[in-house]
Amino acid sequence: MRDGAGDELIGRVFLARVIEPGDEVAGRWVREAGVAEVVARLRGGGEALAGVSATRWGGLLARARRADPERDLAVAEAAGMRFVCPGSGEWPCQLDDLGDARPLGLWVRGRPSLRIWALRSVAVVGARACTEYGAHMAVSLAAGLAEHGWVVVSGGAYGVDGAAHRGALGAGGATVAVLACGVDRPYPRGHTELITRIAEQGLVVGELPPGEHPTPSRFVLRNRVIAALTRGTVVVEAAHRSGSLVTARAAQRLGRHCMGVPGPATSALSAGVHELLRAEAQLVTDAAEVIELVGAMGQLAPERRGPVLPRDLLAPAARRVLAALPARAAAAPAEIALGAQTTEDDAIARLYELRALGFVERHGDDWKLTRQATASVHRGRPRG
Amino acid sequence: MRDGAGDELIGRVFLARVIEPGDEVAGRWVREAGVAEVVARLRGGGEALAGVSATRWGGLLARARRADPERDLAVAEAAGMRFVCPGSGEWPCQLDDLGDARPLGLWVRGRPSLRIWALRSVAVVGARACTEYGAHMAVSLAAGLAEHGWVVVSGGAYGVDGAAHRGALGAGGATVAVLACGVDRPYPRGHTELITRIAEQGLVVGELPPGEHPTPSRFVLRNRVIAALTRGTVVVEAAHRSGSLVTARAAQRLGRHCMGVPGPATSALSAGVHELLRAEAQLVTDAAEVIELVGAMGQLAPERRGPVLPRDLLAPAARRVLAALPARAAAAPAEIALGAQTTEDDAIARLYELRALGFVERHGDDWKLTRQATASVHRGRPRG
Repeated sequence: MRDGAGDELIGRVFLARVIEPGDEVAGRWVREAGVAEVVARLRGGGEALAGVSATRWGGLLARARRADPERDLAVAEAAGMRFVCPGSGEWPCQLDDLGDARPLGLWVRGRPSLRIWALRSVAVVGARACTEYGAHMAVSLAAGLAEHGWVVVSGGAYGVDGAAHRGALGAGGATVAVLACGVDRPYPRGHTELITRIAEQGLVVGELPPGEHPTPSRFVLRNRVIAALTRGTVVVEAAHRSGSLVTARAAQRLGRHCMGVPGPATSALSAGVHELLRAEAQLVTDAAEVIELVGAMGQLAPERRGPVLPRDLLAPAARRVLAALPARAAAAPAEIALGAQTTEDDAIARLYELRALGFVERHGDDWKLTRQATASVHRGRPRG
Repeated sequence: MRDGAGDELIGRVFLARVIEPGDEVAGRWVREAGVAEVVARLRGGGEALAGVSATRWGGLLARARRADPERDLAVAEAAGMRFVCPGSGEWPCQLDDLGDARPLGLWVRGRPSLRIWALRSVAVVGARACTEYGAHMAVSLAAGLAEHGWVVVSGGAYGVDGAAHRGALGAGGATVAVLACGVDRPYPRGHTELITRIAEQGLVVGELPPGEHPTPSRFVLRNRVIAALTRGTVVVEAAHRSGSLVTARAAQRLGRHCMGVPGPATSALSAGVHELLRAEAQLVTDAAEVIELVGAMGQLAPERRGPVLPRDLLAPAARRVLAALPARAAAAPAEIALGAQTTEDDAIARLYELRALGFVERHGDDWKLTRQATASVHRGRPRG
C-alpha cells in the first residue's frame, strides 16, 4: 500500500535502507537537495555529498546497490505493513519537530491511523529489568490512560515497556509499539506474541525497513521517535544512565511533558527517575495526574471543543463506527462492531481515532458520543 | 539561670504562661505596647486589650492570676532548664521571621548554645506511624547530616521524628528536639529515655512552660518553630493532611528549603510527600542532596569562609575545646574532651558549635581544625 506521492515515497523507502535512523547530516542533504537528488547521487554512485568522508560514502553506496524499494514495498504489503512518510495523509506532523533527525518515514503494522492516534498519546517507558513495583505502576498507569481514551506508546521491550502495553491492552485500550528494528521481526523474541497482538489491536511502527535488526544505537535513536510522537513521556523506573532517561530528556527538549514516577530512594531502579525529577521532570503518581498535565486545554475544557473535523472528512471505516453509536446511550465495542459490520479490534481502533478527534468518549468499558457530536447529528453537521 | 534583661525576661516567662503559642493577636500587643505594658494590663485585671472579646480576656486574666514566673524560673533552674528569649544572647534570631507568631521565648534543656547550633541545622520530620522504609530513610539522612557537621532538628515523636533523633545520636552527632509541651515532661511517654538522652547530648526546647501538656493545636503550632529554626525541612514520609506537611509549608513560606523524600507511589505514607513534591518541595534522596541545598554558599565554598567570629568572642567552654584540638591532625571527641578537661558530651556539643562557626570540620568520627582556623592560630588571630 502506498500513501503519498509515488516517487517521493519510493525514494524515501530507498533512503530508509541506506541511511541510519537519526542521521542528521543525511537529513540535511534530503532537506536541502530533495529526496530525488539524494537518491540520484546514491544510485549514480558518483560524487560524494557535502561533508561526507570517502569511506562513509563508500559504505552508503554499498547499501544503495543492495537496496530494492519496490521489493521492500511488495514484501511489506504482503505482510500487512505500510510505509508512512512526510507528505502522506497518515504522517504524524509532530515528528517534524525532530528537524533533520526526522525519520525518513515509518513502517506501520495495524489498522488505526497513526496520525490520529498520536494526537492523544502518552509514552510510558522504563527499565527492562524493572521491579514488581515498576511493573505494577506501568500496568496501572497504562490502564488508567486507556480508560480515559488515551493511547499508550512504548518500546515493546521487556519490563516497564511490556507492562505498559499489556496494561493498555488489558483495559481494552489503544497502544503503539515503536520498535528499533523492522516491524516484521518482533524484538525481543520473547515478546513475539505481545507484539503480534499489538499489531492486531493497535499499531507497531518503526523506522527500520523489513528484516532489519536492532543495534544499541538504533535503540537510543528510536527513543527520539517515542518522545516526538507523544504529548508527554512518563518514566516509570530507570537506573542512572538508562535509555528511558534519553526518551524523557528528548521529550523535554521537544517541548513535550517530561514526567517521572517516584519510588523508594533506596531503589537503584528509581535513582534515574529521581535524578530526572530533581532536574526537569514533573512528578506523577497515577494516570489522573498524567492526564492533568498532557490533557491541558483539551482535558480541562473538553465540553467546549467538540469534534475537530467535519464528519464528512472522516475515513469511511471511522464514519461507519460513528454511525453505529446510539444517539444518547453508551455502548460496548462488541455491540458497536456489530452495528458497523466490522471486527471488535477494528471498532476499538476507530473509537480511539474518534476519541482523538473529539467525537466520542470512553465511559468505563463503553463508548458514547460527546455532547458536541450529538448536537451536530441533530443539526445535520458538526460545529467546527 | 537568666539570660537577657531581667524585667523583660521575667515578663516573657509570665506571658508564656498566659498566652498560647503562636497567638498572633497577642504577639501584636507585645510588639506594639511592649512586654511591660501587656504584663501590667494582665496583672492589673483592668481594661481588655484591643481586639479581644470579654470572654477571652476573662480567660487570660484567670491564667494571669495563676502565673508565677519567679517560681517557674526557680523550678526550671533546679531541673537544668533555662529560658531563652528575644534580646538574650542565646536567642536564635531567625525565629524573628515568624513576626507576631514569634515565640515569647523558649525553654531549653541541654549544654550547647541553641543560637549557634541552629545556624547549621536541618529539620527531618514525618509520620508517626511510618513504614520501615520511612524509618530507614530518617535514620540514614540524620546520620549523614550529623557526619557532615549538621544539627538534626525534629519533634521527638514516634516514627520518623524518633528515627531522625536516633540516627543523629547514633552517628555521634548533634540533635535538637522541639516539643509541644513543657520540656520537663517528655512526650510521648515512650520516648522518655530518648528525650532524656537528647537533653544530655543535645538540646530539648519548647515554648511551653514547665509542666504544660501537649494539645493538638500545640503540635501544629510547634511545627512553625521547627520550620523557622532550621535552614530547611525534609519530610520523609507523610500521609495527606499530615502535620509534617504543615512544617514543610511553613518552611517554604519562611524562605527555608522545603524538601521531600520520594517513596512508592502506591504507599499512602508517601502520598503527602508526593503532593508536596508536585507543588513546592525539592526532591532529595540522601544527606548529600540535602546538604547541597541547605549548604548553598557555605558548603560549596567552605574554604573561602573561615571562622565567622574571632576566637576571643567564643564562650570559655568552646574556647577550651578549640584549644584542645591538635594543630593539623584529627582527633576523636573523647581525646579532645580529655584535653579540654570536660565530658565527651560537652566536647561534642562545643564541637558542633565550633563547626557552625567555621572553626572545625568533622572527618568520619574525628574532628580537626579548618584550614582557616589553623592559619589564624599561626597568625595569632583569625581572619574576619
